[in-house]
Amino acid sequence: MAAPLAGITVLDLGRVISGPLCALTLAELGATVIRVEKPGGDSSWQLPPFAHPDGSMDGTRRTEADISLSHLKRDHGKRSIEVDYTTPQGRDQLLALVGRADVLVENFRPTVMSSLGLDYEVLKRVNPRIIHCSITGYGHGGPYQHRHGMALLVAAMSGALGKTGFPDGPPVTPGFPVGDHVSAVYGVIAILAALRHRDHCGLGQFIDVSMYDVMVNMLWDEPLDQYQDESRADRLGNTDLRGAPINVYPTRDGWIAIMGLSTAHLARLCVELDRPDLAVHDTLAARTAAAGEIDAAVTRWTSCLSTAEAMARLDAIDVPNAPVRSPWATRDDPHVDARGMLVTLEHAASPGVPLPYRAARLPLIMPAVELGASPVVEPLGASTAELVGVTDEGSLGGTPAADGGGHQVH
Amino acid sequence: MAAPLAGITVLDLGRVISGPLCALTLAELGATVIRVEKPGGDSSWQLPPFAHPDGSMDGTRRTEADISLSHLKRDHGKRSIEVDYTTPQGRDQLLALVGRADVLVENFRPTVMSSLGLDYEVLKRVNPRIIHCSITGYGHGGPYQHRHGMALLVAAMSGALGKTGFPDGPPVTPGFPVGDHVSAVYGVIAILAALRHRDHCGLGQFIDVSMYDVMVNMLWDEPLDQYQDESRADRLGNTDLRGAPINVYPTRDGWIAIMGLSTAHLARLCVELDRPDLAVHDTLAARTAAAGEIDAAVTRWTSCLSTAEAMARLDAIDVPNAPVRSPWATRDDPHVDARGMLVTLEHAASPGVPLPYRAARLPLIMPAVELGASPVVEPLGASTAELVGVTDEGSLGGTPAADGGGHQVH
Repeated sequence: MAAPLAGITVLDLGRVISGPLCALTLAELGATVIRVEKPGGDSSWQLPPFAHPDGSMDGTRRTEADISLSHLKRDHGKRSIEVDYTTPQGRDQLLALVGRADVLVENFRPTVMSSLGLDYEVLKRVNPRIIHCSITGYGHGGPYQHRHGMALLVAAMSGALGKTGFPDGPPVTPGFPVGDHVSAVYGVIAILAALRHRDHCGLGQFIDVSMYDVMVNMLWDEPLDQYQDESRADRLGNTDLRGAPINVYPTRDGWIAIMGLSTAHLARLCVELDRPDLAVHDTLAARTAAAGEIDAAVTRWTSCLSTAEAMARLDAIDVPNAPVRSPWATRDDPHVDARGMLVTLEHAASPGVPLPYRAARLPLIMPAVELGASPVVEPLGASTAELVGVTDEGSLGGTPAADGGGHQVH
Repeated sequence: MAAPLAGITVLDLGRVISGPLCALTLAELGATVIRVEKPGGDSSWQLPPFAHPDGSMDGTRRTEADISLSHLKRDHGKRSIEVDYTTPQGRDQLLALVGRADVLVENFRPTVMSSLGLDYEVLKRVNPRIIHCSITGYGHGGPYQHRHGMALLVAAMSGALGKTGFPDGPPVTPGFPVGDHVSAVYGVIAILAALRHRDHCGLGQFIDVSMYDVMVNMLWDEPLDQYQDESRADRLGNTDLRGAPINVYPTRDGWIAIMGLSTAHLARLCVELDRPDLAVHDTLAARTAAAGEIDAAVTRWTSCLSTAEAMARLDAIDVPNAPVRSPWATRDDPHVDARGMLVTLEHAASPGVPLPYRAARLPLIMPAVELGASPVVEPLGASTAELVGVTDEGSLGGTPAADGGGHQVH
């Protein structure tokens, strides 16, 4: 059965996270994705850490056989081509690719494509069906559009940092790349919608994904205006105001998260804690008002238990809870295994680097390819060779070698 | 020009955040979304805060005219119908709707739909073209599938809380509903891909979105196995190890985020700080190794400046930065205005509750409707009445009243 994006060709001019991740998701959905990189490859090839052919990983690239995990993680399943589109000849080569592609993804700052003579108005003259997805920090237009748009900075500007942390402590950055990631997935949504639109009317479009828009969208899921009018603290630690106990509590050996949303949850917990007096708080408003008193009682109780003991007791009375685990806990997790959520990418000619990676919901289609000079390059199929509009196969990335050479994806 | 999902009908059985938000995004893309709620409406109608017809907002629902912001924010643009599908008659009514719909979205725990005799195997016998999207905490299958799947708990289990915060402090919850939100948008991606697949082959499918999968995916964008092998701390505060200075620094009146990714950024900053000695760290490895020393020097400098002064000085030397703003700062923000990212939803018969809300990238299609008993109900167009398969218009939500009644969206 054909994958949803079978037959769709994507040009990936992305760098670092959001652009390459957007294009990767399209590859996972079955698109043919071609990374278009400057001669020598973009900076992601130089980002530590590196996987070495002997199976080790560290921060140093010693030979050309060492591959950046950034590249291996986000660019597997793609083909590649080197095009210096800052030159007139390279620009013509890129426009020839645009003429035969369906989608172009890039995450340059807003002025870059137009300064290269490659803005959407140019692309659509070459190919009215092209869908041009730009992912930027602040979008095209508006007073912040020329500000640097790295995720940390956009999170700071949007209020996401200001809203994360404890009332009496500093602002805190989420420990995972939420801005980059969510911009990428909104890019995928917009591209899928634009393909559907094109199915109806035959025309492509320009897509302007802004990380700031995405963060504002996510933050305003809550009624922030109401919170400000109530003079709430900017940040509330691990609580929220939808009930009590809702918090993260210390145990003898770590922390446990408890989400007591209902009066029934509190009533059962009061029996377990031998604190029937707290069960008088039998409405949402009463529980929320008594959150401090309830949290103190729960803390006294959890502090005497291990995390596993607290989980077992809470599970027995069906009070929602979860252990606060280390970031590395999912590395060896039966649920992650059962869901197939981490797959191993192996390095070329290596005995196997155990590199767990975000799994696709659909089969991965092809290993990461090396840039043009790949020693494992195989002749491309006619349709792809025709698509990329060049006859010099040496300038194309390789397809997977049937004999197991190249970077294998497992 | 038709919206991408024009002609697509979605049944929204969702509750609280992820299900309703997924369906809302489909509505924003042009789908007709029908909320299917238990008689009297689901719990989101009872969640504080409430907007009152006199224009005020607070935590108390005094009359039926007071509307939950949760409902107004996530369910505008949808129609509604009351169906008690826990009864045989209601189940038949729901299956009649399934027979005429394209997509069903729900975020019940994994066993609920099958316990009601409404699992995908049943739905597809009624309509082989139906796309059934389930959004759960841990997915269908695997050892955690029956655990409570609220966002706080899944974030704790996945390592997201453990990775957020300072090395010597407690784990910290992101201050915005990232798990719910990103599950919803992955649901949208999967539904759009499934619609494309159905265009090819004529068949629907079951979609199993797991919040845990989504969080694991996002966290493993970084090489966590490598970090563990290097014995890194679980959480790193506001730093990351891609250079220095990368951190959040105190100013006289707040905080500023600085993202010095390149050696050139550091070199220019060293001139500004009059610390030429720090410019010797002219490689990524050297800058990262000297991060503590660099951070101390930057902190001494920012501590003497207001946030605005620090921004101006850093902008002048093109060192990436952003102010750490309050969560409410975007309420009155010229860039948010320029992007049209917050729109105002007005309450029925009210002079206008200024309720900024996540804007759609596409026009909103219809105001939030009240449940069946809506006093502003208008006769439905023939095609929708036929679609929902009932003749009793009193059991349907209203369309917008042409005279400006009902909940207006601006």
